[in-house]
Amino acid sequence: MPGEFNLIEKYLANRQNQRKDVDLALGDDCALVQPPENARIAISTDTLVAGTHFLPDAKPEWVAHKALASNLSDLAAMGATPAWVSMALTMPEPDESWLEPFCDSFFALADYYSVQLIGGDTTKGPLSITLTVQGFVPRDRALCRDGAKVGDWIYVTGNLGESKAGLDVILDQSNRDKPFADKLEQRHYMSTPRILAGQSLLNLASACVDISDGLLADLSHILHRSDVGAVLNIDALPVSEALTAFCGSHEQALKYALTSGEEYELCFTVPEAYKNMLEGALAHTGTQITCIGQIRSGNTLELLEDGEKISDDQQLRWLAEGYEHFKG
Amino acid sequence: MPGEFNLIEKYLANRQNQRKDVDLALGDDCALVQPPENARIAISTDTLVAGTHFLPDAKPEWVAHKALASNLSDLAAMGATPAWVSMALTMPEPDESWLEPFCDSFFALADYYSVQLIGGDTTKGPLSITLTVQGFVPRDRALCRDGAKVGDWIYVTGNLGESKAGLDVILDQSNRDKPFADKLEQRHYMSTPRILAGQSLLNLASACVDISDGLLADLSHILHRSDVGAVLNIDALPVSEALTAFCGSHEQALKYALTSGEEYELCFTVPEAYKNMLEGALAHTGTQITCIGQIRSGNTLELLEDGEKISDDQQLRWLAEGYEHFKG
Repeated sequence: MPGEFNLIEKYLANRQNQRKDVDLALGDDCALVQPPENARIAISTDTLVAGTHFLPDAKPEWVAHKALASNLSDLAAMGATPAWVSMALTMPEPDESWLEPFCDSFFALADYYSVQLIGGDTTKGPLSITLTVQGFVPRDRALCRDGAKVGDWIYVTGNLGESKAGLDVILDQSNRDKPFADKLEQRHYMSTPRILAGQSLLNLASACVDISDGLLADLSHILHRSDVGAVLNIDALPVSEALTAFCGSHEQALKYALTSGEEYELCFTVPEAYKNMLEGALAHTGTQITCIGQIRSGNTLELLEDGEKISDDQQLRWLAEGYEHFKG
Repeated sequence: MPGEFNLIEKYLANRQNQRKDVDLALGDDCALVQPPENARIAISTDTLVAGTHFLPDAKPEWVAHKALASNLSDLAAMGATPAWVSMALTMPEPDESWLEPFCDSFFALADYYSVQLIGGDTTKGPLSITLTVQGFVPRDRALCRDGAKVGDWIYVTGNLGESKAGLDVILDQSNRDKPFADKLEQRHYMSTPRILAGQSLLNLASACVDISDGLLADLSHILHRSDVGAVLNIDALPVSEALTAFCGSHEQALKYALTSGEEYELCFTVPEAYKNMLEGALAHTGTQITCIGQIRSGNTLELLEDGEKISDDQQLRWLAEGYEHFKG
């Protein structure tokens, strides 16, 4: 528009291979796509705002990765196969030195998962990115939050806690001297959406969520929607040596693992009968998984540490500390 | 998220009837929808930013209508039937007195077109709204910009120019004493997406665009994509008595009609052979249409006023004046 940016032609159009199910991408009033037969569409929308979800001076390539990876993680949590993405990009001024690395990183991740950018809007205003991703799940299956049953085992992918440690580094430069500070900062932005793991879990998991608000909060979403309780063994939480070194103790690293948000790992539940098939089903994805607890009746989440029950007060404090975004 | 708003449960969830093709709306990692067989999906994303697309103190019910209507207008321009919408809402602080009228207005318009809100993200930051709307078009038809042929007639729906007059009122209080100022201000925000007209044109129009950047700019999009030229009769542009009274002369009202953006009327082209079917096809929609010119060969847009050709210089000046969004 006159008086508005039109960055789409220059930065976003014609950057990708055309998917066969995309009849029309950028350049008309709408995109036109052909959904597959016998599939449902999974759709998720997420916004990253400068000052809230990333610092305004964060590397643009990291911001692009975080924006797309966090959205793809929602598809992964449903077991969906990614297909299309729409981008709304708001910037104070067109800035080539920011846009180029942003777009390079965005399309690198999109291409890796065969996701095509089908639509976009570029507007003038405070820096923010809203993406709407779409993917496919079978007509009769998807990984929802409401399927966990008493007796199911609780698993997580990957290691937990590093995103929170990375945030410590980003927000307080005094943490930059700690071990693995740079690695953890990068990990905060550059997560790996667990797309392959999610797809492989479609026939095995009874419920699934991606860890964006922190394990305690996100597992609680499963419990609430499934109307069940759980016991969770803090000692079992998977933490990296880098995180333990950064935190100074294994115990502190475990606390990070409990509450760290924007991890974009999956937390899922598996019936006893399918437990022994898990490793085989995930082998081709190279995804580490760890059993961290079990679903039980009731509506409470009981935390155990060294076999001792953590008090409700302590648990509430952890949940309240929870995951804090960037502040202005 | 802790430290983030979760306004979805309170303001957005359970406000609507459930469409039969929506298996899962708000409350999980993704929405799940069932696309119809033998249809393609039309998708459009648009952002409204406070200070750019509306003044921060604009009535929230008007902002909500403008956000959804401008997105639905993109579906109308493809001839699509609306189905689903995702909303990303960014606000500095949760503000009930703003959210309630915003949501009431949003859902009133959504319900009118049987559009269901399937996903949302509410984040902390400068006020903005990004919507992604989706609708259906047949597998073998859609109103694109690239189908105009030499000899086709050029039409617009409704009256033009009122949105620009409304903007005059919004930006300069001294215009509030002019005739119909309040009506035109409201018209700026409260457009009628031409959904029914778009659907009715699916078998008749060779090209279509919605007027968001101004008639001159948007008709140029059709000409560019269709690789044709056109002649446009300024005298034929449909303007209301209210606009003429506000502008002080019919001539000035016609200038507004040429460049006024965010009109959300349709501009479309129709082959000679279908011209006499138009009125019958649109009769049930109650949509006024006006023939304003004709497609011809070449790549130029010739403007005629009283049968006299407007100079290219004048035309460029109009195009450059074009449509300006709110400034800061």
